[in-house]
Amino acid sequence: MERKLRFGVLGGGSWGTAIVKMLSENLENVGWYMRSASAIRHLKKEGHNPNYISSAEFDVSKLQLSDNINTIIDASDVLIFVIPSAFLENELKNIKVSLDGKIVFSAIKGIVPESGLIVGEHFHNVYQIPFKNIGVITGPCHAEEVAMERLSYLTIACADADKAELLADTLKSHYIRTKISDDIIGTEYAAMLKNIYAIAAGIAHGLGYGDNFQSVLMSNAIREMKGFIDGVYKMKRNINDSAYLGDLLVTGYSIFSRNRMFGNMIGKGYTVKSAMMEMNMVAEGYYATKSAYLSNEKREKKSKAPIIKAVYNILYQEKNPKKVFTKLTEKLD
Amino acid sequence: MERKLRFGVLGGGSWGTAIVKMLSENLENVGWYMRSASAIRHLKKEGHNPNYISSAEFDVSKLQLSDNINTIIDASDVLIFVIPSAFLENELKNIKVSLDGKIVFSAIKGIVPESGLIVGEHFHNVYQIPFKNIGVITGPCHAEEVAMERLSYLTIACADADKAELLADTLKSHYIRTKISDDIIGTEYAAMLKNIYAIAAGIAHGLGYGDNFQSVLMSNAIREMKGFIDGVYKMKRNINDSAYLGDLLVTGYSIFSRNRMFGNMIGKGYTVKSAMMEMNMVAEGYYATKSAYLSNEKREKKSKAPIIKAVYNILYQEKNPKKVFTKLTEKLD
Repeated sequence: MERKLRFGVLGGGSWGTAIVKMLSENLENVGWYMRSASAIRHLKKEGHNPNYISSAEFDVSKLQLSDNINTIIDASDVLIFVIPSAFLENELKNIKVSLDGKIVFSAIKGIVPESGLIVGEHFHNVYQIPFKNIGVITGPCHAEEVAMERLSYLTIACADADKAELLADTLKSHYIRTKISDDIIGTEYAAMLKNIYAIAAGIAHGLGYGDNFQSVLMSNAIREMKGFIDGVYKMKRNINDSAYLGDLLVTGYSIFSRNRMFGNMIGKGYTVKSAMMEMNMVAEGYYATKSAYLSNEKREKKSKAPIIKAVYNILYQEKNPKKVFTKLTEKLD
Repeated sequence: MERKLRFGVLGGGSWGTAIVKMLSENLENVGWYMRSASAIRHLKKEGHNPNYISSAEFDVSKLQLSDNINTIIDASDVLIFVIPSAFLENELKNIKVSLDGKIVFSAIKGIVPESGLIVGEHFHNVYQIPFKNIGVITGPCHAEEVAMERLSYLTIACADADKAELLADTLKSHYIRTKISDDIIGTEYAAMLKNIYAIAAGIAHGLGYGDNFQSVLMSNAIREMKGFIDGVYKMKRNINDSAYLGDLLVTGYSIFSRNRMFGNMIGKGYTVKSAMMEMNMVAEGYYATKSAYLSNEKREKKSKAPIIKAVYNILYQEKNPKKVFTKLTEKLD
């Protein structure tokens, strides 16, 4: 494989910033699209993103920054999308240059609301990217710890092992270890489903359940995730690998997770609307819950998925969190 | 099965106190042996254990308290041992009454240092208790949350399902759910091994590793635990059930776990001796590490168990924690 491919990161949030940092360790040139022109000005002047993980410092001479998505896409062979799934389709609509032959990696953890698809499927179905050119970057990885250069492990999944290997090699450094996987569907579903379980953990905490219950909830969540993902696409995978269980744990146990925080507010009695307004953002898991629930309902062999159903009933059916969780506890073991 | 069996709890620590509280919800009479005569006096007068989870209140009229282990054993058909494994053999040597026909449950999480055996095996090999009369009570369960009546799940394992069912029924209440298992070996090994992984989590934390690494460590730990337990006794078990994964998580993520705290001190540079002196106690996982390491070495099909080996090298071979963990991180994924 040609090693002189040009890499472009699309998205200026914390995870996008972390990925640019990782790439900058190995590349002399990284393309970086972010919406905010003022953030770009700040970055060029001060060497860090003013809005996210600002302790991560950049050698600006390596960065090709632009607030025009077409500029970066046109200049890149490998595109890494890190735009929140709720805004992805809006950004994609602005693309005027061709995506032909581009390698598209998604570092987005969620469902595209417009299509109800995980990001890889969305690129394939809506933008005709062949599956061999689609890949996924998953954690377990908080961007904040990348900024601090704390040892983290990433899994790079692609049907084409050479492409997975290429990106894995380009991301790894003294604080990043990478492994590759061919489970593009499973890793992406895991990254999406874990946000639902993080909401569930938050609701439980908000309702006053303790650490004993949290561990039971996570133990049930990983079994439920396995059943769900096997139902979507059965293949040999160890659900306890870092990309699945590790990713669930780093989110489900993080008090900084926005999904867990959102759930916590719901558990404490906020309505969905007021919790969203209070947080001034939409937690990825909110869309994931609806999509996971509905896609499961449509499937011939439905997964029982009691945790996803409980979260769905609370977020979309206005069911009482306390009552729903009391029932849920009887289904867990 | 005769339901009018008499229950006796042996041990006055926090977990023993929690178990007496659970039994008191359902029984009119619970035998309770604790070493400290002054604690018994306090309990009789004030209705709570002065030394452990003192917020748990007891109806003293239900309790038969004694500082003589023989009195309680003689008066009980079902014995629940909750004495730290390091002191168990010393207590057992004081037994003068017969253990014939007694049902012996262990709620001890560790290895008996004198024999290097898990508690069930120790009772079988050293005290000739038939396996059908031996059982195990495992969490995930912090005693502190039992005191607060926060929903918790227990697994009761016994080769004889009737006996497991009997204890499960007797322990359950509005805040305790129970399930039974026939995996007496696996659940007991899990309860023992998780303390080693909690030490590892503590060492990592002490060395400055973050949440990303912790989730990778736990993801590797559960896979290592599965390999280890399958090597000891292979049977159909889901390692992600609460008794295995849940128990690992509640301990590995608890900042109150004494094993994790011990590891944290080691990671921060304390010697084993100074950490033990500082804590004024020996963490169960200290003995478990040696026993697990040695028993694995003796086995024909050795488990790779890199985490257990790393902890062993640090605790027993005076290897430098930082160097050992740097090497360990290369073996994890």
